[in-house]
Amino acid sequence: MALQPVPLEKFYRLLNHGPTVMVSAKHGGVENVMSAAWSCVLDFYPNPKVTLVLDKAAYTRSLVEGSGYFALQVPFANQAATVIAMGQSRKDNPNKLADNGIELFYQSDADIPLVKGCSAYILCKLIPEPHNQQTHDLFIGQVIAAYADDRVFRNGHWEFDEVGDELKNLHYVAGGQFYITGKGVNVKSDMPF
Amino acid sequence: MALQPVPLEKFYRLLNHGPTVMVSAKHGGVENVMSAAWSCVLDFYPNPKVTLVLDKAAYTRSLVEGSGYFALQVPFANQAATVIAMGQSRKDNPNKLADNGIELFYQSDADIPLVKGCSAYILCKLIPEPHNQQTHDLFIGQVIAAYADDRVFRNGHWEFDEVGDELKNLHYVAGGQFYITGKGVNVKSDMPF
Repeated sequence: MALQPVPLEKFYRLLNHGPTVMVSAKHGGVENVMSAAWSCVLDFYPNPKVTLVLDKAAYTRSLVEGSGYFALQVPFANQAATVIAMGQSRKDNPNKLADNGIELFYQSDADIPLVKGCSAYILCKLIPEPHNQQTHDLFIGQVIAAYADDRVFRNGHWEFDEVGDELKNLHYVAGGQFYITGKGVNVKSDMPF
Repeated sequence: MALQPVPLEKFYRLLNHGPTVMVSAKHGGVENVMSAAWSCVLDFYPNPKVTLVLDKAAYTRSLVEGSGYFALQVPFANQAATVIAMGQSRKDNPNKLADNGIELFYQSDADIPLVKGCSAYILCKLIPEPHNQQTHDLFIGQVIAAYADDRVFRNGHWEFDEVGDELKNLHYVAGGQFYITGKGVNVKSDMPF
């Protein structure tokens, strides 16, 4: 495998199918990762944006607010236990990354920690919106870079039909229950999105 | 099949796995339906909310702004061609509902049109947020009711592993290409969401 840059024109395809993500951020030398089911594309290039819901109880929220940056990573199905483990708060276990064998890395010159072994990464700069953050726990990010694992995403397309279930994505429901991404279906279309 | 009410405590499970939705609304006697890949849960009960992105070019946007109500419906995989057809704007084809055999119905006493034959329905009252709507094309809805088809959603749980592919959900990528919902995976968890 190799991580390849994804043009910002195509970043939305990394999230469009509604995968569960893990959110990462760093501030004051502290790195953290949390799972999130509630993240979504907000706009296309030339204004690529995402939304992300961060509860006031989430430790990662303070890192996002402090640094003004975060990343979304799209885990593989074989990371389901990691996604559940990252649903635990760092407030309850300050060693949750080490205890769960999470390895972080940094890509290009962005100071945003990324979790090794995911299918795709979307790096974002927070667009401060104090009303949304306070009233709705809603954060908006400007996408500044994106990467994907070329085993599953090539030339702007997911290739899930060519890989085993372990390399598909996760779609969280509740109570530790996910669905993995299923079969591809193509309907001829000139839809703009 | 029978459409059953979904308690508002459980409505988020209808969207958590990231399905593509169709948005419906009515104003001034005009009903419309459009497809949308960008909708997401924003909060749990007792404050159940969703986000929805509606481009300024979308006809349905004017109906949502005018009436203050909309519904999200989660189509079955066998409705993929309908989802693509509803991606066409009513501005380009004022007869798009009739031309595509869309049948609408109304549930309980809400004056929001719903598309027959979908797996789940989330009825929403717009929470006006002029800045979000103008700057980000972002709409926030308070969930007022939810329903699901009991062939696939029972007692608060999707039962996709028990049905054929045609009764799974759709996850849109781009260019007429979807993935359908795949196999269930369960990781023991005490995650709060």
